[in-house]
Amino acid sequence: MVEYVEKEAKAEKVDVWKIKKYVCKVKPIDIYTGKNIIVLNKVEAQEHDIYSGYRTEIRHDGKSIIAIVDVSEEIVESGEIGVFRDLAGWHKLKKGELIEVVHMDQPESVKFIKKKLDKGSLNSYEIQTIVKEIMQDRLSEIETSAWITAAYINGFTDEEVIALAEATVDSGEQLNLGKKPILDKHCIGGVAGNRTTMVIVPIIAAAGVYIPKTSSRSITSASGTADTMEVLSDVIFNMDEMRSIVLKAKGAVVWGGGMKLAPVDDKLIRVRHPLSLDPEGMLLASILGKKKSVGAEFVLIDIPVGRGVKVPYVERGNELAKHFLRVGAKLNMKIEALITDGAEPVGNGVGPGLECIDVLEVLEGRGPDDLRHKSLIMAGKLLELCNKVEVGRGYSVAEGLVNSGKALAKFREIIGLQGGNPKVKTSDIQVGQYTHTITSDVSGSIFHIDNKVMSKTARIAGAPRDKGAGVLIHRMRGDRVEKGDKLFTVFSESEAKLDFALKALKELEPIEMRKMLLGSIQ
Amino acid sequence: MVEYVEKEAKAEKVDVWKIKKYVCKVKPIDIYTGKNIIVLNKVEAQEHDIYSGYRTEIRHDGKSIIAIVDVSEEIVESGEIGVFRDLAGWHKLKKGELIEVVHMDQPESVKFIKKKLDKGSLNSYEIQTIVKEIMQDRLSEIETSAWITAAYINGFTDEEVIALAEATVDSGEQLNLGKKPILDKHCIGGVAGNRTTMVIVPIIAAAGVYIPKTSSRSITSASGTADTMEVLSDVIFNMDEMRSIVLKAKGAVVWGGGMKLAPVDDKLIRVRHPLSLDPEGMLLASILGKKKSVGAEFVLIDIPVGRGVKVPYVERGNELAKHFLRVGAKLNMKIEALITDGAEPVGNGVGPGLECIDVLEVLEGRGPDDLRHKSLIMAGKLLELCNKVEVGRGYSVAEGLVNSGKALAKFREIIGLQGGNPKVKTSDIQVGQYTHTITSDVSGSIFHIDNKVMSKTARIAGAPRDKGAGVLIHRMRGDRVEKGDKLFTVFSESEAKLDFALKALKELEPIEMRKMLLGSIQ
Repeated sequence: MVEYVEKEAKAEKVDVWKIKKYVCKVKPIDIYTGKNIIVLNKVEAQEHDIYSGYRTEIRHDGKSIIAIVDVSEEIVESGEIGVFRDLAGWHKLKKGELIEVVHMDQPESVKFIKKKLDKGSLNSYEIQTIVKEIMQDRLSEIETSAWITAAYINGFTDEEVIALAEATVDSGEQLNLGKKPILDKHCIGGVAGNRTTMVIVPIIAAAGVYIPKTSSRSITSASGTADTMEVLSDVIFNMDEMRSIVLKAKGAVVWGGGMKLAPVDDKLIRVRHPLSLDPEGMLLASILGKKKSVGAEFVLIDIPVGRGVKVPYVERGNELAKHFLRVGAKLNMKIEALITDGAEPVGNGVGPGLECIDVLEVLEGRGPDDLRHKSLIMAGKLLELCNKVEVGRGYSVAEGLVNSGKALAKFREIIGLQGGNPKVKTSDIQVGQYTHTITSDVSGSIFHIDNKVMSKTARIAGAPRDKGAGVLIHRMRGDRVEKGDKLFTVFSESEAKLDFALKALKELEPIEMRKMLLGSIQ
Repeated sequence: MVEYVEKEAKAEKVDVWKIKKYVCKVKPIDIYTGKNIIVLNKVEAQEHDIYSGYRTEIRHDGKSIIAIVDVSEEIVESGEIGVFRDLAGWHKLKKGELIEVVHMDQPESVKFIKKKLDKGSLNSYEIQTIVKEIMQDRLSEIETSAWITAAYINGFTDEEVIALAEATVDSGEQLNLGKKPILDKHCIGGVAGNRTTMVIVPIIAAAGVYIPKTSSRSITSASGTADTMEVLSDVIFNMDEMRSIVLKAKGAVVWGGGMKLAPVDDKLIRVRHPLSLDPEGMLLASILGKKKSVGAEFVLIDIPVGRGVKVPYVERGNELAKHFLRVGAKLNMKIEALITDGAEPVGNGVGPGLECIDVLEVLEGRGPDDLRHKSLIMAGKLLELCNKVEVGRGYSVAEGLVNSGKALAKFREIIGLQGGNPKVKTSDIQVGQYTHTITSDVSGSIFHIDNKVMSKTARIAGAPRDKGAGVLIHRMRGDRVEKGDKLFTVFSESEAKLDFALKALKELEPIEMRKMLLGSIQ
């Protein structure tokens, strides 16, 4: 049987089109598609057994790359190859240059993906190969989706998670500071206004410990940390620039997407997104791979729990936390995971500019209590985790660094190094000139403020693109309000967007009041 | 908890971009992509929160359709929408016409696909919705791949298979002959030269029973039945034309792809292909859905078993056969499944022209024994299945229809009705003028002739596009050959393609001789 299989494999391998040459002249097409796409003459492509949607290898000047085929009867003539903008950058292809089109071998990882579908566990080489072929565009979204689905249904072993985390690191560049210890933090997300990073990084750096923080931009929320930091300074830096900032200030808050850090993760997220597939193993590999890429040895994970966020209850949060610790240890990272209350927004502002005001105020010793308290807990835990301060003293050390103004001074240093104005004051931060304040139409106490509704309202008002757009929350959960009291204000940079937001709010319930009577049955 | 979920669902639903209008002028782009693609101005699209790869709904003149977004900075200006050729056909879009671009709702089937990923079983409505949204292009290949992968891993219940078969029927047009009984046959495939359909259809029709056969073209093999029939007549007909042919002759052999029959199946196959995923439930739904679409009540399934075909051993064939019978019964089809020897090619010719010669010779009472015998068994079983002849007499009735020349006359009638020459002789069939005959370099008996190698060789020589290209097998399994005896001849319409085929053959083992000594261990 084995012999038969080998013989069949041999028969599959002989590809006649490898024997024939298919050479075409470049014709550039100015369309950016986000993929490597070529356009071949329909009739000529057919003669070479190539059809729309096929992947081919194209070769030029000793280099080769994978491209996806479109066909046309008119835009390219026989002997021409239309090259979209994404691909034209590759080896600086110019009009009239010759390119060879070659049938692509079946990707090696197809058999590993099938193994995973058949409930097998993949070894490190197999995972590396899948990641490599995703990066080379040898695997299509169809194949990647099948792998992710199989990971979701069949699960990942810890060995697979570790292999994927390591392959994620290897898929991009790494930050080598040559310093120790290096700290990092990550939040699972979902909480509006939760800008602890911008408070924690200056505290840790002020304590003399390295924290090279890369943050994300918003996908569907009102703002990501990178969007908010961008109000105060640049956030797009390459690896060398970031290294130089961190070596000077010990901390930085930059956009992860600006560096070539763990790029396979972006490709996986793109495929996971339509079905919101978050196989736990992939989530862990993604987060820990990114932390590993910046050289982090001590990592604090914030797992917000509650209504409306990813992790609905504490028990589930505890399981996830243990998984992080187990896998992190094998990746030589010491991890502490905090289960936090994620049911309501943290801070008063939701939206880039308003969040900056909260952050600056906290560092000035004022600001929203919840953001201050959560940030101090986290900074304290980080300082304890890396043995910078003894267990039990972290919070007070962090608080001291804020109260003494050292954290604020450090933040201003970072802002300056990142190209912003180090003397920025809260009054310099522009917020939208079009505002509307929602008041309570009843008296009572606030039972719930909805993260998703606040985030959506801020987004509709223009956030994160319009930095001054957002929502400012005046009253928190548990607060007693009288009829007519201000609940929250919507800010926008345009009257039209403000109107859109108010229109949307009519259909939503941003704030729920406590009700004693939940129903009646007669 | 239920109340919370409902509230969140409400928050998700409010889409600000539905409130704003995004209207652009059509700019046609002559590229055929096989998908509905539009090009938007990058900056303008961003302002509407639309990015490369997104799906949007576009509306024009009261109609709407789903399109995939590309972005460009130069090919389309602000206010313009580049429309690829596939989409320009829709509602005859002309340069300068106004189109509205609208954010697409999340497809309803996303939650059904997730249910399947979570090991749930889908009901008929849920399967119908998935099929409908695949047909509308609302689901991307990422989502479709996830569903197929889940079907592969978690399996389909019989109810899901039936629902998918029915939704497959509903996805396209149906042939309503208004006659009874209607017979059909299907082969699971993989056997080179196996052109039983073209012998069976004339026999059944000559016996006075309806058999409206739709066949496929080759994907990776040397020829599909539709490719081979095309040597003798047209095979592309619409539903009305086919109905008219079958009402006259009782039988037809046409290309299924020419009609709008079960079109969702083509879309599923395209996604199943890269990983060769054949979830059994989808295979059954695909085959039985197509049979149902032509109104078949009695269906014979040919399950070739053996080395190198899909079903490797008889026990597996039996299981598959029982699954067919069980599901078929619930779809009101009486099914008989035959387990046949599929290890070697059937007939002498492999490739369209050479296969036609085999078929005509069998109908003339000559021709290859294996093709004749297998076709008579199958035609006999079909006649027994629908109670046209009593059990045990089918084979001899079929043989009588061949020996009397009635089946050949019927085939000529069908050829004529399908626009071919009803007086065609085997000598009229053009075969490639460039030939090379492979002889045996040893004496012995033939142990195995490889389906895949024969098919690949014929394909490299030009089949199925070059109708005269192929392989003619001179000696069969078990035959005694002497050194220098002819084994098979390769035919090609071009000297270059013949050379390619011979070059490929050097790396392959098309024919294995019986060996007594299989190995020695010292």
